[in-house]
Amino acid sequence: MRILVANVNTTQSMTDTIAAQARQAALPDTEIVGLTPRFGADSCEGNFESYLAAIAVMDRVLSYPEPFDAVIQAGYGEHGREGLQELLDVPVVDITEAAASTAMFLGHKYSVITTLDRAVPLIEDRLKLAGLDARCASVRASGMAVLELEEEPERAVEAIIEQALLAVREDKAEVIVLGCGGMAGLDEEIRKRAGVPVVDGVAAAVTIAESLVRLGLSTSKVRTYATPRPKTVIGWPLTGAATAAMP
Amino acid sequence: MRILVANVNTTQSMTDTIAAQARQAALPDTEIVGLTPRFGADSCEGNFESYLAAIAVMDRVLSYPEPFDAVIQAGYGEHGREGLQELLDVPVVDITEAAASTAMFLGHKYSVITTLDRAVPLIEDRLKLAGLDARCASVRASGMAVLELEEEPERAVEAIIEQALLAVREDKAEVIVLGCGGMAGLDEEIRKRAGVPVVDGVAAAVTIAESLVRLGLSTSKVRTYATPRPKTVIGWPLTGAATAAMP
Amino acid sequence: MRILVANVNTTQSMTDTIAAQARQAALPDTEIVGLTPRFGADSCEGNFESYLAAIAVMDRVLSYPEPFDAVIQAGYGEHGREGLQELLDVPVVDITEAAASTAMFLGHKYSVITTLDRAVPLIEDRLKLAGLDARCASVRASGMAVLELEEEPERAVEAIIEQALLAVREDKAEVIVLGCGGMAGLDEEIRKRAGVPVVDGVAAAVTIAESLVRLGLSTSKVRTYATPRPKTVIGWPLTGAATAAMP
Amino acid sequence: MRILVANVNTTQSMTDTIAAQARQAALPDTEIVGLTPRFGADSCEGNFESYLAAIAVMDRVLSYPEPFDAVIQAGYGEHGREGLQELLDVPVVDITEAAASTAMFLGHKYSVITTLDRAVPLIEDRLKLAGLDARCASVRASGMAVLELEEEPERAVEAIIEQALLAVREDKAEVIVLGCGGMAGLDEEIRKRAGVPVVDGVAAAVTIAESLVRLGLSTSKVRTYATPRPKTVIGWPLTGAATAAMP
Amino acid sequence: MRILVANVNTTQSMTDTIAAQARQAALPDTEIVGLTPRFGADSCEGNFESYLAAIAVMDRVLSYPEPFDAVIQAGYGEHGREGLQELLDVPVVDITEAAASTAMFLGHKYSVITTLDRAVPLIEDRLKLAGLDARCASVRASGMAVLELEEEPERAVEAIIEQALLAVREDKAEVIVLGCGGMAGLDEEIRKRAGVPVVDGVAAAVTIAESLVRLGLSTSKVRTYATPRPKTVIGWPLTGAATAAMP
Amino acid sequence: MRILVANVNTTQSMTDTIAAQARQAALPDTEIVGLTPRFGADSCEGNFESYLAAIAVMDRVLSYPEPFDAVIQAGYGEHGREGLQELLDVPVVDITEAAASTAMFLGHKYSVITTLDRAVPLIEDRLKLAGLDARCASVRASGMAVLELEEEPERAVEAIIEQALLAVREDKAEVIVLGCGGMAGLDEEIRKRAGVPVVDGVAAAVTIAESLVRLGLSTSKVRTYATPRPKTVIGWPLTGAATAAMP
Repeated sequence: MRILVANVNTTQSMTDTIAAQARQAALPDTEIVGLTPRFGADSCEGNFESYLAAIAVMDRVLSYPEPFDAVIQAGYGEHGREGLQELLDVPVVDITEAAASTAMFLGHKYSVITTLDRAVPLIEDRLKLAGLDARCASVRASGMAVLELEEEPERAVEAIIEQALLAVREDKAEVIVLGCGGMAGLDEEIRKRAGVPVVDGVAAAVTIAESLVRLGLSTSKVRTYATPRPKTVIGWPLTGAATAAMP
Repeated sequence: MRILVANVNTTQSMTDTIAAQARQAALPDTEIVGLTPRFGADSCEGNFESYLAAIAVMDRVLSYPEPFDAVIQAGYGEHGREGLQELLDVPVVDITEAAASTAMFLGHKYSVITTLDRAVPLIEDRLKLAGLDARCASVRASGMAVLELEEEPERAVEAIIEQALLAVREDKAEVIVLGCGGMAGLDEEIRKRAGVPVVDGVAAAVTIAESLVRLGLSTSKVRTYATPRPKTVIGWPLTGAATAAMP
Repeated sequence: MRILVANVNTTQSMTDTIAAQARQAALPDTEIVGLTPRFGADSCEGNFESYLAAIAVMDRVLSYPEPFDAVIQAGYGEHGREGLQELLDVPVVDITEAAASTAMFLGHKYSVITTLDRAVPLIEDRLKLAGLDARCASVRASGMAVLELEEEPERAVEAIIEQALLAVREDKAEVIVLGCGGMAGLDEEIRKRAGVPVVDGVAAAVTIAESLVRLGLSTSKVRTYATPRPKTVIGWPLTGAATAAMP
Repeated sequence: MRILVANVNTTQSMTDTIAAQARQAALPDTEIVGLTPRFGADSCEGNFESYLAAIAVMDRVLSYPEPFDAVIQAGYGEHGREGLQELLDVPVVDITEAAASTAMFLGHKYSVITTLDRAVPLIEDRLKLAGLDARCASVRASGMAVLELEEEPERAVEAIIEQALLAVREDKAEVIVLGCGGMAGLDEEIRKRAGVPVVDGVAAAVTIAESLVRLGLSTSKVRTYATPRPKTVIGWPLTGAATAAMP
Repeated sequence: MRILVANVNTTQSMTDTIAAQARQAALPDTEIVGLTPRFGADSCEGNFESYLAAIAVMDRVLSYPEPFDAVIQAGYGEHGREGLQELLDVPVVDITEAAASTAMFLGHKYSVITTLDRAVPLIEDRLKLAGLDARCASVRASGMAVLELEEEPERAVEAIIEQALLAVREDKAEVIVLGCGGMAGLDEEIRKRAGVPVVDGVAAAVTIAESLVRLGLSTSKVRTYATPRPKTVIGWPLTGAATAAMP
Repeated sequence: MRILVANVNTTQSMTDTIAAQARQAALPDTEIVGLTPRFGADSCEGNFESYLAAIAVMDRVLSYPEPFDAVIQAGYGEHGREGLQELLDVPVVDITEAAASTAMFLGHKYSVITTLDRAVPLIEDRLKLAGLDARCASVRASGMAVLELEEEPERAVEAIIEQALLAVREDKAEVIVLGCGGMAGLDEEIRKRAGVPVVDGVAAAVTIAESLVRLGLSTSKVRTYATPRPKTVIGWPLTGAATAAMP
């Protein structure tokens, strides 16, 4: 089966990291296709950037020319998953929800360690909307910006571990969720150091997407995620136009 | 003061209706400017259209050339308000929240009457995120599409009243909220027929925006709605490009 | 329009401060009338005093001889608003709810800074009943008694700011609400020092009351706040002759 | 031990019924003293009447000349219990909470059958404040006014049973709570007819008050229910001479 | 009346302590019978032991040869109460719920002080299921294992008091609940030192069980706790067989 | 990998059905081993039977002589999963949670269709404890007992579909969860008829268990599910003794 893994920012190297992490988790016969949006911010750290990414991801996925079996939205705490679900017939899995859902099988409470403090409320809100917040002990910020994760992986690991240990000790978390697509690959190191299971959302999402496809399950179309009604939509898809504006 | 009232769909006549309703509620010295997005759907009735509108409204408001004192997002149950709050220094008022907040001063429980059934979960989710759902008795659909409200106002009133009466009798609502920007102006008729206060979100939002401006209050910038960090954003603003794609 | 602003305690100077704050927030053609209860405590810092104030405010408002357009109950976290809503046809706005409702337009979470620790649970309970607690980060006590606010305004400002800074830093509040009618007028100073929007409940309530009146909205009378049924009420109103009916 | 059972309305015959029911539930050596407020409404069916009763009950209890070991506030869904707790050192038990608390030992969910529809939100609010609402299946109104319970006991039983059966069948209640002090004594008949345990709040409150006294437990005075601070309270107590202090 | 007080572990001396505490709280004509399970762990400090205890308590109670009027399950935060309710016609009272329910009549918030940290989530879960968690300020661990309470009562008191003081000061608890059957008898000392009411679950459960019996109330049999349907149950009761395996 | 799928009742044919369903969902190289408890009821339809099953499943799994990689507890809404988590180092997946967790990726709200009405509260409670209830629209009973599912599959399908359609139409469910291990295999038929995705818990649990194993994730041992402390446990394991009592 083929799974599209859509990065939410325009940084190609981050798409590559995410796709690599996805491939590591995937079944042998699963093809992972990493997608980078054609417009938007080089990192998503707030609502404006996240809303723009929501549309950019839809735009990018819709213009993918080959058939595919599932889509993973690989931004943690980002907007947009519901739109993809309306537009597609195949399963859509958001890494925020995949990670939380997986963590809940592993411990009584989980904590999310994310990048900047300003991203914390977005994540809290997405978990609340997803109804996956009841066993969330805390969402903590490491203070590392998204792009710093790539540039300074060692400092990132230290900063994340510091918060992970606080989450375990003070917030009573029993599982740690890595709250950023860009943290893909750091899980092993942190697991070893923090002594608790560490869930990487991209990996979790891959196995969930595969499972849904194998079980023949996809998004319900009877109400919330019904296909959009036919209507006049000006300027969509944005790609043709937007790419013209690109450097 | 000048308040921008941003319609979320591209139907100009609906912008006009909304702006007229806003003017009726405004103080004499308040200038109401109706804005129509440059791209997007001619009506928002789902997540894809709403996410697109979120970006289109940000795009439209940012390109408004004159100074202004507040912005009203005049779509009921739509995405995007948080993005505007990040991008602007002036207060941003969403009509979903304005209406709910106002209704809560008028009765123990309120119900929202919206357009299509598929919009109900979006509204429920926005109210939950806003923390204004605890006293919401129900969100009910009239079965009228957004554009039908304009085309068949009489049938719309009947359909809305039918649900309003059910909300009062069965869900124990004491106040009715009109859950669509396009319902602006129907409040008087429904109030008379249903025997309970009827809140129009646009009118409510105008008075709240005016109040915030008068009190010298605006969005807190210390965390969630801090100005986006400086970074590379490809293809933004979309307008220049996207308008090229318009018919 | 004429708005009655009812202090909940019997301290006339506090009524004057509250009324002055209300006037500063009001529209030019709004007449603010400050009312002091005829009985009760000189400050409300607990349930007994608050229940007594509830009745004293109803007693005072009902005996006001001129017509009026709205009533503001200017005690933070106090009992009684529901009774006024039953007794009156005009809108009733409680400053606890007005402030919370306003704060929610300004940030993701708000905190209330009140007087004594013993008042905290009353405020938490009123916010919970009002369904406005979901985005309340904390209610914190400054340790200043109500009357000390008047006597030692400088120390009060310091004590409030100390808690406001803790609320922002530790509880992640983005907006501060002044949780006492007697704090009216301190908002500017605190806003400057704490770096976040500061909402004064009296000012907020004035603009909300004005808005409801302008929109032609008032309390729903279909259920919870229906006019009391005609019945024998011994000793009411309490001020004056009726006490003669007591055994 | 001596327990004061305070009726919330001024109808002496209802006090007598309540006191008789209390005596039936009490231990042999418990003395039950029924108290009727000196002022207030002859039945409580709304917030104004309930707030007035809150003060009238405090007034009546404080002027009781003999020592006592506990107080029961025998109005269902009424305001005021917190005030009594501040003013007294002995345990205070509200029948709303006593009944709910007892019902929760008997079944997975309970429903309350009360008098008029307008009383339903008051009861819901009191249960929410008490933190006893999570297992409340519903609060239903029989449509009988408080005084009609006395005048037409047979019709009352029928009306209550009708709602009790609906609560069991539709709301999945497993226990019925009689939601009015005036329903004391109807429990046996309803229990027989509805086939589920029926809890009378007065009886439940008596056993709880007795238990607290036997266990040497009383209201915590460290925060919420601390004794009121010494201050000037005009016109209190309300009965008698102090009204002379009113202007 | 006769009340069975079932210890959840197999330590006879703990059964004796619990039964003694129960007798101290009971009415003069109440006979307290302490029961020790025939199999299971010598202390319950986790889910496996608690599930085993659930069955062992049912086994023990069912094989009690004389009639009885009520059963108390004297393990704090343990599984099993619902099973007993199905199997018996007499009231079943769990000390976890009895203590919480009693504490809620004494203060605005209560905290539970239990033994080991690993027991905290079990207690939190049982309180959540019971719908008695809304006013629970915290569940804190003293760090003392169950059997250490017996062996080192003085150190236990110190450890419990330390947490009780933290609960009052930091979590704003106004009442302390002793969260272990084995803490029976420590309440007086802790009450004196912590300055707040201290609720012992065994004592509270006795008065509640007595009250239910006196009021003629027992478990509703219409749904959740209906008698098990007749069916083939292999290996039950376990006693005959299991006791053979005992040393 | 080898996954143990533990039936909760003693009906071997039901274990076979469950194991077959598990094999259909499993990856080619996954070995599914169906386990039938050595004692307990031939169907679980209440708390007593479920608590007994909890212990019987632990007993059965612990005595499985070969190594295994994960365990699935294949009873819907049953007790015991937490105990298995303590006793084992490999992942434990409960079908109640697996199904709910999977359904939440497919629609905005899901409903569970179970067997008898008396099982509904058990399921609601398990979902609440698991923190997976926020998006559960309803738990509905088909009225079919567990063993009737096997005996009358056609009538079962009709009864389940009737409730599924009501769940979609009245409760606004968008996904149906089959709430009984014994319903394994009915999903296709119901999916076709109800027009919404249908989740079978056993199949869902298999893919989740496989995913956890593939990702190298297992139960956190730092707190709630730490291995039981070493202590004296009388009569455990029960098997030796209990089997002697079996026919």
